[in-house]
Amino acid sequence: MFESAELGHKIDKATYDKEVPKLREALLDVQFDFAAAKKFEAIILVGGVDGAGRSETVNLLNEWMDPRHIEVHGMGEPSDEERERPPMWRFWRALPPKGRIGVFMGSWYSWPIVDYVYGNIDKEAYHEKIERIVRFEKMLVDEGALLIKYWFHLSKEAQRKRLKALEKDPRTRWRVTKRDWDHFELYDRFHEADEQALRMTSTAEAPWYIIEGADTRYRELTVGTTLLEGLRRRVDEKDGAPSASHVPPLLPSIDQLHLLKSLDLSHALSKKAYERALEEQQSRLVQLARDPLFKEMSVVVVFEGNDAAGKGGSIRRITGALDARQYQVIPIAAPTEDERAHPYLWRFWRHLSRRGRITLFDRSWYGRVLVERVEGFAPETDWMRAYGEINDFEDQLARHETVVVKFWLATSKEEQMRRFKEREQTGFKRYKITDEDWRNREKWEQYEHAVCDMVERTSTDYAPWTLVESNDKNYARIKVLTTLCDRIEGYMNGRRKTEKQNGKEAKGNKGKAKKK
Amino acid sequence: MFESAELGHKIDKATYDKEVPKLREALLDVQFDFAAAKKFEAIILVGGVDGAGRSETVNLLNEWMDPRHIEVHGMGEPSDEERERPPMWRFWRALPPKGRIGVFMGSWYSWPIVDYVYGNIDKEAYHEKIERIVRFEKMLVDEGALLIKYWFHLSKEAQRKRLKALEKDPRTRWRVTKRDWDHFELYDRFHEADEQALRMTSTAEAPWYIIEGADTRYRELTVGTTLLEGLRRRVDEKDGAPSASHVPPLLPSIDQLHLLKSLDLSHALSKKAYERALEEQQSRLVQLARDPLFKEMSVVVVFEGNDAAGKGGSIRRITGALDARQYQVIPIAAPTEDERAHPYLWRFWRHLSRRGRITLFDRSWYGRVLVERVEGFAPETDWMRAYGEINDFEDQLARHETVVVKFWLATSKEEQMRRFKEREQTGFKRYKITDEDWRNREKWEQYEHAVCDMVERTSTDYAPWTLVESNDKNYARIKVLTTLCDRIEGYMNGRRKTEKQNGKEAKGNKGKAKKK
Repeated sequence: MFESAELGHKIDKATYDKEVPKLREALLDVQFDFAAAKKFEAIILVGGVDGAGRSETVNLLNEWMDPRHIEVHGMGEPSDEERERPPMWRFWRALPPKGRIGVFMGSWYSWPIVDYVYGNIDKEAYHEKIERIVRFEKMLVDEGALLIKYWFHLSKEAQRKRLKALEKDPRTRWRVTKRDWDHFELYDRFHEADEQALRMTSTAEAPWYIIEGADTRYRELTVGTTLLEGLRRRVDEKDGAPSASHVPPLLPSIDQLHLLKSLDLSHALSKKAYERALEEQQSRLVQLARDPLFKEMSVVVVFEGNDAAGKGGSIRRITGALDARQYQVIPIAAPTEDERAHPYLWRFWRHLSRRGRITLFDRSWYGRVLVERVEGFAPETDWMRAYGEINDFEDQLARHETVVVKFWLATSKEEQMRRFKEREQTGFKRYKITDEDWRNREKWEQYEHAVCDMVERTSTDYAPWTLVESNDKNYARIKVLTTLCDRIEGYMNGRRKTEKQNGKEAKGNKGKAKKK
Repeated sequence: MFESAELGHKIDKATYDKEVPKLREALLDVQFDFAAAKKFEAIILVGGVDGAGRSETVNLLNEWMDPRHIEVHGMGEPSDEERERPPMWRFWRALPPKGRIGVFMGSWYSWPIVDYVYGNIDKEAYHEKIERIVRFEKMLVDEGALLIKYWFHLSKEAQRKRLKALEKDPRTRWRVTKRDWDHFELYDRFHEADEQALRMTSTAEAPWYIIEGADTRYRELTVGTTLLEGLRRRVDEKDGAPSASHVPPLLPSIDQLHLLKSLDLSHALSKKAYERALEEQQSRLVQLARDPLFKEMSVVVVFEGNDAAGKGGSIRRITGALDARQYQVIPIAAPTEDERAHPYLWRFWRHLSRRGRITLFDRSWYGRVLVERVEGFAPETDWMRAYGEINDFEDQLARHETVVVKFWLATSKEEQMRRFKEREQTGFKRYKITDEDWRNREKWEQYEHAVCDMVERTSTDYAPWTLVESNDKNYARIKVLTTLCDRIEGYMNGRRKTEKQNGKEAKGNKGKAKKK
């Protein structure tokens, strides 16, 4: 993998001096077009061996190009706000909008590699993290980002020399830290870890450029040329039909039998039973939200469903039991300009709350595979890949002490008509039936199909869907509340069990340690 | 101040039951119109005595209205990311966009009041903080926000009873903490502090509603009714010409002598002198940025100037000396949709960086009193109040260990013409002269006038303007770099001196303590 980056690449001064002025002009020109068009964002990863020229390269980009459209992210230790969200949150929040260049020095590779080298995670966990990166980068590219990855390499001997040389020069001495030498001691382990990461993530969409770091002129010209070509090709690309879809079709529903049809929509609760159950479940939620463990976790609740299925009412039965500081309701409407300038899931990542809170999404990221699919707002390739991206997103939440609860509120077509008519007769504006509601209704079967595919492809053990029979509002509300409480309680019990076991083990270990 | 809130207001159940259904319908209706129109944002402050019904009121709002368009902010301890910015940053980032309601429980009043009551700040400092709040709230209202402030009051005896009652009931016992009783012990001090704050901030634009907290029905009806009226009046307001300007004119320039004319634009530096000075000043900047103190401060640099005055070139001479992780260049163009949905300064607050970084603004908040004034994008009332708002903003930066450096790059009209023509002949797109550049040039004198007013009204001792004679680029770049270094160095020296003195005092105290 690194063989060709240990050949001793060199550029002589004459060539360099001849090439650089042209290159700089061309880079500035392409950056101007890129920033003006705002068609896509450029994400540049700068990784590699200490002393191989990472920070010199970043400084070079800022010098050769217009620093006003470049954002550099050092990404050292995460802040407390970052630690309370899944690890990728800090990268999501730092993604550049279209028309800007985001340079990541400490990238999503840094921590997995360091964790593996230091033995904090085993090989399996390491591979899993790298696989996640592959999916994340594929998503970025699919969303239209230009992703350019540079890896600066030095052979072991070259790195030793380089660090020595930096240390000798009084102007650069400060740059060599004890950490650099510690890492050098681990050169072979890093080499192995790096190689694996690079091999697994050198994909067709986003291959690594592995660049020998020893010769400054070679390094600079290589970076400049590849960046220029990468940007120029994308900037000059003609808009047009998205590339032909090679998406295999989903399972067809030949016999017209599907999940939604299997629901028994006749479930109902009497007013009295409802009121008793409501009080019971709301008190349960109050208790759970006051549990000390609640402050160490998050809850994300997704509400999807037919128009007029009662999402708002169900949400209010949850919020009614909570202190207003413990929850946040996020209604999802059309994306704003800032949101459109970022990958699809960005606008949901940005609403993830700190620990100890319930975030209720009134409609959600599933819009991609529902309305955007049915109405044709997103091409097939985009909504097809959304299933996997969403599963990934929810997996990250679940691994970060977040309980993900998803509801589909289902009514029959007849019950919807009854509610539409009822709403047309009320004077309250909030119940206004719009043309869009009627239009959606006409596509009832298409939506049903989309819902079934969605449930099938995104109901996971860590974030299962709950289908809620909603012809009777009382029944639906209690089912929502009960499910939510069950899930939170289940999480808490699981965690207490684990902690007890760990506690025992820790005690056991302590005992052992004493004996020694 | 609190007299009428100790009268024992009460509403009987029959009246309450009669009024509430109508009120809730009307509230939902007005909220629907409000959310659909997105004409303004509603900011609701909920303050007052512990146990007087603050959190009940917030929960009520969420119950009576649609919680999907309400954001509640508890605002407890600031996070580390918040601590690294001026104290108001956390409120700025939490301001709701137009069409949404933001409820602040811990508001900008909480910390000043608590600090004063606990003796952390003296009366003068307290008054100053309250004065700042007055200006902040005036800005919000001037920007179009609806600001509604509720203060829930209980007499000392009523509060004691209320806390006791809460403690007795097993369902509410958890809500009474030691802190509540500690505060109760300080009732009289709080009373004094609250009264001052309320008196000083009960302005015409945003008066307080002081509401007796003892009777729940009275409290709820009062809140509901005032909120309904406040929202309804603003929602129904006709768009139209902004209210007539009562702004007194600025000082006219009768004799045509002004600041910019007094500049000696013939300053120049030879290439050799420039190169020597550049190396010298850049090394100085490198040293300063490596000083341990640099990690505990921030630097904000503002670049304004005539078109083609050389802002970009000056910025690159600064960034060229720094590690790319130490700075961020923010080019200011037209605001995005998210930005337009917030008060004017919001889009600058959001870019404030954490400590240890230099943020360079290529154009800035001064657009308000330059292009927006001259081109008539902002009505006179808006740009006239901007001077004070900007001074306030920069004062907050300066008090929060931020060095604010502002440059006006001035060229002569002739030199600008020369550069425009030169640029028209270069092939590089980034130097394209646009129609807008020519249009701006036609308004040269109006811009000159606006610049003079700006410098006069916003050059403060904590954030002075530096006028940079820029007919000669070499001279200008060196002046910019030197000024920046001087300011950073000056700050560091000042801080070291203070710390030394404090150290001596601390030592002195220690000595004293020992003697005892």
